[in-house]
Amino acid sequence: MRIALDAMGTDGAPAVEVAGALGALEELDPEHEIVLVGDRQILEAELARHENPPLSRLTIHHAPDRVLPGEKAASVVRKKPDSSIVVALRLQQEGEVDAVVSAGSTGAIMAASLIILRALEGVDRPAVGTLLPTAAKPVLLLDAGANVDCKPLHLAQFAHLGHIYAQDLMGVKHPRIGLLNIGEEPEKGDEVALETHHLLAADRTLNFVGNIEGREIIRGKCDVLVADGFVGNVLLKFYESVAQFVIGLLEGALRDAQMTLDLDRLLGVLDYSEYGGAPLLGVNGVSIVCHGGSPPKAIRNAIGVAAQAVRSDMVTHIARELAALKTARAAG
Amino acid sequence: MRIALDAMGTDGAPAVEVAGALGALEELDPEHEIVLVGDRQILEAELARHENPPLSRLTIHHAPDRVLPGEKAASVVRKKPDSSIVVALRLQQEGEVDAVVSAGSTGAIMAASLIILRALEGVDRPAVGTLLPTAAKPVLLLDAGANVDCKPLHLAQFAHLGHIYAQDLMGVKHPRIGLLNIGEEPEKGDEVALETHHLLAADRTLNFVGNIEGREIIRGKCDVLVADGFVGNVLLKFYESVAQFVIGLLEGALRDAQMTLDLDRLLGVLDYSEYGGAPLLGVNGVSIVCHGGSPPKAIRNAIGVAAQAVRSDMVTHIARELAALKTARAAG
Repeated sequence: MRIALDAMGTDGAPAVEVAGALGALEELDPEHEIVLVGDRQILEAELARHENPPLSRLTIHHAPDRVLPGEKAASVVRKKPDSSIVVALRLQQEGEVDAVVSAGSTGAIMAASLIILRALEGVDRPAVGTLLPTAAKPVLLLDAGANVDCKPLHLAQFAHLGHIYAQDLMGVKHPRIGLLNIGEEPEKGDEVALETHHLLAADRTLNFVGNIEGREIIRGKCDVLVADGFVGNVLLKFYESVAQFVIGLLEGALRDAQMTLDLDRLLGVLDYSEYGGAPLLGVNGVSIVCHGGSPPKAIRNAIGVAAQAVRSDMVTHIARELAALKTARAAG
Repeated sequence: MRIALDAMGTDGAPAVEVAGALGALEELDPEHEIVLVGDRQILEAELARHENPPLSRLTIHHAPDRVLPGEKAASVVRKKPDSSIVVALRLQQEGEVDAVVSAGSTGAIMAASLIILRALEGVDRPAVGTLLPTAAKPVLLLDAGANVDCKPLHLAQFAHLGHIYAQDLMGVKHPRIGLLNIGEEPEKGDEVALETHHLLAADRTLNFVGNIEGREIIRGKCDVLVADGFVGNVLLKFYESVAQFVIGLLEGALRDAQMTLDLDRLLGVLDYSEYGGAPLLGVNGVSIVCHGGSPPKAIRNAIGVAAQAVRSDMVTHIARELAALKTARAAG
């Protein structure tokens, strides 16, 4: 297995990416390789700062250009053909690598993945899945930001994408699918939520557990939470900031009391980097998106997620599920 | 000034309401009165449990019935004419009281307020405003749950409702109005957000500060945050649960370390009951909604909010603002 890592994506590129890749290689099977995609000269200089990097498993693929913040996502493939994101995705499309990990702009990765890898048949809109930390195991929220103005059929497809992801990567046999809504009752919500509830409730292939209210999101009632990308994105960003806010209050309280407390476990539960990146689900390939502010640990874990997606043959499973769904729709 | 308190709304009714009313009377001007609306016999028995209640300022208005959980909000006025919510709102409509506070079902209070008090001219949809705690002063989020499938014009009206509320009740001279969205740039968002941004940016009477992302909500960038009731409701409920979750993690960490820490200040910042209730904005009257799980302090503070709304003549100000907006729209 070979995984391409866009080495120019994080705020601390390429040092963060190289450190993350080296960490990942220690955990991956010995026959697995990582391809660093970026400017060869810069990457060679960065690698030289590490002692004895395992160069047989960590190669460089030259990509002289990079996508800059604020660039229009839709035109990245056309305008930046030699950028690290685009080159990495082309390597996957050509079969040179099995997966891509990037901490570049989500919009650019999404747009380039769609153009280069293409959407799987039966998927109108690929979705970004994100794991939200909870007291128990994390919940997969999708879509977390790529798709706004979703129609009920799109949300129903998200449910199936999440279903497979939860089976293949979260180890959940019968994933409980929830629909984000403003009330528990089926008749609650806006027009899209009402119709989506109806679709999901009628779908015998899913373990649909009904509507999930805001207060239930992190209370372990579902494994997969389906939402429009607008509210999904707002929620995800809000969650990060609320956790930071409350921890800040706590640190102030500890300081005032002249106390010290080891917050590692506390912060560990809320640490997004534990979960690695967010998968782009529904494209014909493995494309994992990381936060631009990712530390090496997040990159390492995202590479682990990518490897697991390849190992479990997630894309084939998704393709099979979506094809069956399409057949069922056409028949019913 | 007379304020009607629906005495049968909280989970701990009527004890919570009576205790809240007694607390409020200590803070209100001596000529102000509270009218407890509910079953006279039950309320008299509850009052008898307190020593020397100030009966000249705390009277009972008999309402034999109450709205039960799960009742259809839209038909409450017709089917439960003698319920405490409906009777309290009628007292206001007849001029017997100046404001109503209730911790009953938000949907029922909203529906009954609309039917009995009616919407102000120029308001298509009244909105529930809720104060979100932040490190600095709270942010008014509206709509927090009453209205889904809002059109841009509705959201623009919410901005004006929030503008007046922030001036009259939050003491902000030039309230900064933000639009909840998935990116800072004007061209981000779903169709409704795009069009709303355009409307708000063109409105010279508002201090519109642009789009607010999820991570910026509690970072003090705006005083009023405009959102569709779907995402507003999800956010509000999510916020409460995240704060509880993080505090739970903290308590566990303290226990493990065999430490005790006075969490009062920490919890105080996150304590919704500090802010009293959520105003229903855009109706021809003062209608304050409290959480069903409110403690007496929240009821006391909600009565304080109601008194301030009456004192500042908020409803007249809103009516004037909305009429001017309507004229401007007709002219432009």
